[in-house]
Amino acid sequence: MSGPLQFEIECQSSSCGARLGRVTVPHGSFETPAFMPVGTRGTVKGLLPKQVAATGSQILLNNAYHLMLRPGDELIRELGGVHEFMQWHGPILTDSGGFQAWSLADTNLLGEDGIIFKSIIDGSKVELTPERSMRVQNNLGADIIMAFDDCPPSVDAASRVRDQRPELAAAHDKQVGSDHRRRLVEAIDRTARWLERCVAAHDRSADQALFGIVQGGPDETLRRRSVEQVTAFDLPGYAIGGVAVGESTEVLHATVQMTAPMLPADRPRYLMGVGYERDLVAGVRAGVDMFDCVLPTRNGRSGSIFMPTGRAQIKNARFRADNTVIDARCDCDACGGGFTRAYLRHLFISGEMLGPILLSLHNIRHFQRLMVDIRRVIRDDAWSSLADTWPVLRTPPAEAGHRSASADLTGNHAGSRSMDQ
Amino acid sequence: MSGPLQFEIECQSSSCGARLGRVTVPHGSFETPAFMPVGTRGTVKGLLPKQVAATGSQILLNNAYHLMLRPGDELIRELGGVHEFMQWHGPILTDSGGFQAWSLADTNLLGEDGIIFKSIIDGSKVELTPERSMRVQNNLGADIIMAFDDCPPSVDAASRVRDQRPELAAAHDKQVGSDHRRRLVEAIDRTARWLERCVAAHDRSADQALFGIVQGGPDETLRRRSVEQVTAFDLPGYAIGGVAVGESTEVLHATVQMTAPMLPADRPRYLMGVGYERDLVAGVRAGVDMFDCVLPTRNGRSGSIFMPTGRAQIKNARFRADNTVIDARCDCDACGGGFTRAYLRHLFISGEMLGPILLSLHNIRHFQRLMVDIRRVIRDDAWSSLADTWPVLRTPPAEAGHRSASADLTGNHAGSRSMDQ
Repeated sequence: MSGPLQFEIECQSSSCGARLGRVTVPHGSFETPAFMPVGTRGTVKGLLPKQVAATGSQILLNNAYHLMLRPGDELIRELGGVHEFMQWHGPILTDSGGFQAWSLADTNLLGEDGIIFKSIIDGSKVELTPERSMRVQNNLGADIIMAFDDCPPSVDAASRVRDQRPELAAAHDKQVGSDHRRRLVEAIDRTARWLERCVAAHDRSADQALFGIVQGGPDETLRRRSVEQVTAFDLPGYAIGGVAVGESTEVLHATVQMTAPMLPADRPRYLMGVGYERDLVAGVRAGVDMFDCVLPTRNGRSGSIFMPTGRAQIKNARFRADNTVIDARCDCDACGGGFTRAYLRHLFISGEMLGPILLSLHNIRHFQRLMVDIRRVIRDDAWSSLADTWPVLRTPPAEAGHRSASADLTGNHAGSRSMDQ
Repeated sequence: MSGPLQFEIECQSSSCGARLGRVTVPHGSFETPAFMPVGTRGTVKGLLPKQVAATGSQILLNNAYHLMLRPGDELIRELGGVHEFMQWHGPILTDSGGFQAWSLADTNLLGEDGIIFKSIIDGSKVELTPERSMRVQNNLGADIIMAFDDCPPSVDAASRVRDQRPELAAAHDKQVGSDHRRRLVEAIDRTARWLERCVAAHDRSADQALFGIVQGGPDETLRRRSVEQVTAFDLPGYAIGGVAVGESTEVLHATVQMTAPMLPADRPRYLMGVGYERDLVAGVRAGVDMFDCVLPTRNGRSGSIFMPTGRAQIKNARFRADNTVIDARCDCDACGGGFTRAYLRHLFISGEMLGPILLSLHNIRHFQRLMVDIRRVIRDDAWSSLADTWPVLRTPPAEAGHRSASADLTGNHAGSRSMDQ
């Protein structure tokens, strides 16, 4: 293989942009469309790597931001890199840290050079620049690394911050500005300038594939401009950023539908931090190949179960004596293992770790079963049959318990984009 | 097999009381000497049953007290019993609830009928009597159930309560009395009267083996009196209670060495709530066949690792860049899985669930590997060679990081006896 990444497209849907393929990187290959569980700090919370592999996950995401702060990227390099560190020997992708540095810190300074933020660990001042992000990701040694981008919040999220956290409005305005479109323009141009610096600073282009990230909010003109700027660099893959940052489901879907086809067809397209089942399906339909999201694990830890018919809260009293498994057709360790809803409810009510563990296993497997079916209907060119086994895709967001994959820019538990805190 | 339990002794040591055997109960059999991990609320914290089985554990302990309060023993019976509830299909033993009702509640009333205590769940008044304990354990449906006994604290623990929690001294004195020996006498006689009521109330003697419990503190005369009273009932097994309740290691060992041989040789002997490696070995040497303890799991959750050479705290800075596994000769999921001390430290420092999970797996496997070796040296009649592979057995308690398996009678996290909170 020439370069760190090879992408083969096996077939395409005749009715939409969906395509079936395989990405090969130094630590193995994964089928696309692919869903990546999030292992923020070098662990998918509560699960051994072999349990994650058993869910059908073929590639994981780690966060450069968290690992840089603790235990430190230099240490991980000394210990043999992130694969060896966490004992996941398949493909890994690291996020650049820009989104986290920006969204996890109340007080940060965004400038042309990069972002200065207060460490969430000890409050110390940390500077993250395109060069630093590359050095961190080179040290971590993931198969796929992400450009350091400027990712502003959606206009909806921006006004929510102003309403809900007035004390942060001034700091926020410093970032976003009152003219949101001008901020988006600044972000795409800066993202392009930062990408140039990332390409120059990337020291391991032989064995780490650098993906560029397209910004531009929901605006078609801006997205096109960003795509032109980013694809001017001949990179092994491209990502759609600036989504799942507080916008509505409708805006998210429209942005993806518009942006994905602008990206080169012969490179993997990665939609960052998305999302619910219908969001993944919308992405695949638009021609997206890779996804990551914290929803299956984060929601699982709080007792929220994903099912083909929609979501439910396991702590609900109606499950008290429910002697059935979550989903009789699911083959995860929770459902296949015979653990009843009554038992799972007991674990959550009692604050037992095994509850979050079993629901994380189930929810990730739920997402991977959806991906298996997505790949099957593309192979069979039977796209429209997908919703037959996934009724949740036909349910309006509100009824399915869905809401916009929203980001609250002010808090640690914000957003669905990759940070599984 | 006649009755709910069959016990076969395969061979005995020529140099001490150790014996090798096998206990068969309705849900399978287990080799003795056996170590039972504790699954207080119907789960060994953080582990799937198949992971527990992979540590070599062949029988588990659950706590009737916790399960009675939540989710309720009636519900568990409706759901098919505790094996089905937690999906552990091997042998299970339930503790009677007496020790927990007594030690977990600050305000309780001990009388001839039983114990009245405040629920740790909602503060409501709950009465636990021999009859109630039997009904609860019959509902749970474990293979081995324990008599409801009167288990007073050691004289050491009693005086510690007086020193450390003066506000509880009055309530405590009401329980223990100022004359500790008189309290021990009361306890053994009451335990005998309660055993008679347990035998009468036990509704499932065909498929649940009821074990009697011997009390009497460190006093040989009292222990002998209790043994006579308890073995007057022809039961499938007998337990040594009233140990690991705050006494020193020396007193614990002397009590076990004295009491075990008093119990019938043809029935399994169970030493409750014990202990560290040297305590298990002392028990086996005295002729004990079964053990349970929370130490591997509780200590594991706080970062304490058991090794053949002694214990260590994984959060210690010296493990920061330690690229070795805990114990190169261990085949647990943590050591065999290649997780380094540096990675385990990172998980603990970061508050990641996987840290407690991996250390629980390692620590339980450590105890089960000790049991494998114990059974091997009995089979080979090479008892004295045991310490060759377990140097911790030769280390004085203080240097090994050992302390007395002590119980603080005033707190929820007291004692090493079975309550893995």
